Amino acid sequence: MVMQTKQIRLTDELIQELNMLVDVGMYSSISEAIRDSVRRLVTGREAPIKNLPEKTEKTIQKLDKEVSKQFQKAKGTSDFYPEDMEQRKTIFRKFMKTAENYNFKQIEAPAFENTNLLTVKQGQEIRDQIFIIEKKGSEELGLRFDITVSATRMFIEKQKELPKPVKWFYLTRMWRYERPQTGRLREFYQYGVELFGSDKPEADAEILNLLIDSLQSLGLTSKDFFIKINNRKLLEGLLLDIVNKDIINDVIRIIDKRSKLSDIEFLNELKKLDLDDEKIAKITSTLNITNIKEIKTSDLNEEAENGLNEIKAILNLLKSRKEFIQVDLSTARGLAYYTGTVFECFDKEEKFRAIAGGGRYDKMVEQFKGEPTAATGFGLGYSTLTLLLKEKDLLPKINLAPDIYIITIGDVKQQALELATKLREKNRVDVDLSERNLRNQFKYANSIKAKKTIVLGENEIKQGSYKIKDMKTGKEEEVKL
Amino acid sequence: MVMQTKQIRLTDELIQELNMLVDVGMYSSISEAIRDSVRRLVTGREAPIKNLPEKTEKTIQKLDKEVSKQFQKAKGTSDFYPEDMEQRKTIFRKFMKTAENYNFKQIEAPAFENTNLLTVKQGQEIRDQIFIIEKKGSEELGLRFDITVSATRMFIEKQKELPKPVKWFYLTRMWRYERPQTGRLREFYQYGVELFGSDKPEADAEILNLLIDSLQSLGLTSKDFFIKINNRKLLEGLLLDIVNKDIINDVIRIIDKRSKLSDIEFLNELKKLDLDDEKIAKITSTLNITNIKEIKTSDLNEEAENGLNEIKAILNLLKSRKEFIQVDLSTARGLAYYTGTVFECFDKEEKFRAIAGGGRYDKMVEQFKGEPTAATGFGLGYSTLTLLLKEKDLLPKINLAPDIYIITIGDVKQQALELATKLREKNRVDVDLSERNLRNQFKYANSIKAKKTIVLGENEIKQGSYKIKDMKTGKEEEVKL
Repeated sequence: MVMQTKQIRLTDELIQELNMLVDVGMYSSISEAIRDSVRRLVTGREAPIKNLPEKTEKTIQKLDKEVSKQFQKAKGTSDFYPEDMEQRKTIFRKFMKTAENYNFKQIEAPAFENTNLLTVKQGQEIRDQIFIIEKKGSEELGLRFDITVSATRMFIEKQKELPKPVKWFYLTRMWRYERPQTGRLREFYQYGVELFGSDKPEADAEILNLLIDSLQSLGLTSKDFFIKINNRKLLEGLLLDIVNKDIINDVIRIIDKRSKLSDIEFLNELKKLDLDDEKIAKITSTLNITNIKEIKTSDLNEEAENGLNEIKAILNLLKSRKEFIQVDLSTARGLAYYTGTVFECFDKEEKFRAIAGGGRYDKMVEQFKGEPTAATGFGLGYSTLTLLLKEKDLLPKINLAPDIYIITIGDVKQQALELATKLREKNRVDVDLSERNLRNQFKYANSIKAKKTIVLGENEIKQGSYKIKDMKTGKEEEVKL
Repeated sequence: MVMQTKQIRLTDELIQELNMLVDVGMYSSISEAIRDSVRRLVTGREAPIKNLPEKTEKTIQKLDKEVSKQFQKAKGTSDFYPEDMEQRKTIFRKFMKTAENYNFKQIEAPAFENTNLLTVKQGQEIRDQIFIIEKKGSEELGLRFDITVSATRMFIEKQKELPKPVKWFYLTRMWRYERPQTGRLREFYQYGVELFGSDKPEADAEILNLLIDSLQSLGLTSKDFFIKINNRKLLEGLLLDIVNKDIINDVIRIIDKRSKLSDIEFLNELKKLDLDDEKIAKITSTLNITNIKEIKTSDLNEEAENGLNEIKAILNLLKSRKEFIQVDLSTARGLAYYTGTVFECFDKEEKFRAIAGGGRYDKMVEQFKGEPTAATGFGLGYSTLTLLLKEKDLLPKINLAPDIYIITIGDVKQQALELATKLREKNRVDVDLSERNLRNQFKYANSIKAKKTIVLGENEIKQGSYKIKDMKTGKEEEVKL
């Protein structure tokens, strides 16, 4: 049964009345009450409600519980306090530098897009995972769950004037409504790239090189992570020799979730498609290929051959990166829009979810009503990445301590702020803003781990000089005001 | 009449039926149809609908129009293409550096918060300006329209452990549903600070200094901008000597929008409050005070006296910034939560909206159920700022050209990518990814304004060296591979 969501503004009184209908158990929810009222309007049945009871105790308790939840952050989101923020900034700065040196250019897109745009590539099922915004004007908007959609829209808008290939990267956040899990939140930050306008293996090699160099810039090595690479044409071509075309998408969907299934579950899922044991055995042995030399090239169909050539070309371009790359025929990347190369990046022990994933989506620009344009890209999740960095003890060391703290004695506040302003041209400087006594100012300077302190009083002003003290060595230096 | 918004899922069939009721003119919209159906359910009236006509041509046309809108960005939002992004990054980096040197620390908060949290400080009227997210779980969420709310929630969560004062800044975006105008979009970027835990004038002076230094870091001077400063206690105290307490908030609301009204309109608004000409004259002359020495200190009430002392203390601390600051009794900052110092920053000619605004909100932490804590802060909008920078020709000069472009001849793609990787450790390097011929590679290198080019062919590989050419001077240099 196809359903649509509608928004409706009702007066408080009406809502109260509906609440009572729910309280007396006539309807399970206000929504159900409204739905029934619409049915009644359309079918013309007479409404039976006569006398309504008072609001119950239960409703009041519910309300109280709601209020206590009001002042917490939304489920599945993170607050970035200064240390969290500095950590993300440090990591993202390294990604930014690496991507810039690859001559990728940073872009940003609005947080929300028309829901029709968001759903065009993955269909209406994705709607359940979109934070949809209540309609106020004529637009129905939703928070974007990736940026490929927005980047494609942006590319199409300037498709004619931009020199191709277009190489863009982003460091931004997205939103997805799902059950929050480790390394997977409802609001999440991603690093990623899109490369529009080249269908050549060089383009795929370029983004794989960038992914590897980006992770290396954080201190990760081939001992810590690797990339599983596959090609959708190759996989589909090989599968077409085993199963019928009409169930190929179902088979790929099952392959895509294999890592989440036990072997038995995986076989059972395939059996549900009415595949016999021989075919299942063939599928399994195809998926177990980790070296393209195992593939017999003599009797390949055209699609498989094209795919094989593509993956070979990429592997050849990435010869010097061999230790990072592993062919894996079972890497499918379920999303319907991948057309060729697909890859996923994991920690070496595969303890965590994929750190990054990507591939070619040569049909999307066309599907979005642009001039047909090949495209490839990847996305990398900040949350899973930090789990790996933490395990490898590679999280950046954060130091937010100020260089100098100015301690004041007596009525020299104005002069202290002026001195601070001067020193702030080149240093991180803090100064008493709370009119604390001398002892408490020293205590505070210690608590924020100030590297140096200056004591400024009327004497210093008169003398026209002050002492700056290194808090570690205890050394003092005289400086002119 | 207090209204609430409800979401309701209906089957396609029901929606179709409702559409027909709209098409035949029985209701003005589906919403109206649903509302009426609820009224009928509650009041028990009989539904009159009998025979329904066919779907009309009009509906189909409407649908077509909707589809053509699908692939555009949402109204009132901006795409940041590489040049736009680089401009914002350059400006925000300067703000970041300045704020860090003031020992403020960057934070980030989720894009959405519980709507109850969002509305607690400004009341339900603000709801109309919030992008509200359709409820999927038990939470009702909305996109935040400022970050003060989120920062206050975050402060309260760690209130006990954080050394006070807490000095935070942010560079982030917010969302507000309103008619898009010049310098005012539905998605907008802000720079701002919050300082929790000091009720002293030093804290206000600190953020005003920071605001001034931040704008100066972009090349703006006292010839370009100035800050109007006022104190809510002073204003309210002075007004209390003229009008009754019960209309004081109304008077301040009118004062707050004075800049948008003509003199006549302003007077008429005040007259609507039943104020006589003498009182109105007194109000006007109070608002025209631009020097605190004009205020007679002899007969001030307590509130006005407190406010006057606060503003005096701040002006004294900011002596050396005199040329940036102007007392203006008419600066009210309508928002109900300001408690003391208030200020707004404008371009010198007041051609644009306020560039920044802020002040003290000493009651908010308490209102959010935290331990009572004084607080002050400001917010600065990126959009209006860029209008001013543009006019003053101070927008950062953007150069996104790569340092080196590698042109390839023959089958040396793999070696070219490896050379690129090496050079990318220290340079912005691009390389042919489209297998273009030599002529087109040169053309492309020109179109992206590469500073230097390298030609790499089989000869160069054999010789183990290549030439790097400066595209401006034409000078070539031989480099070992």
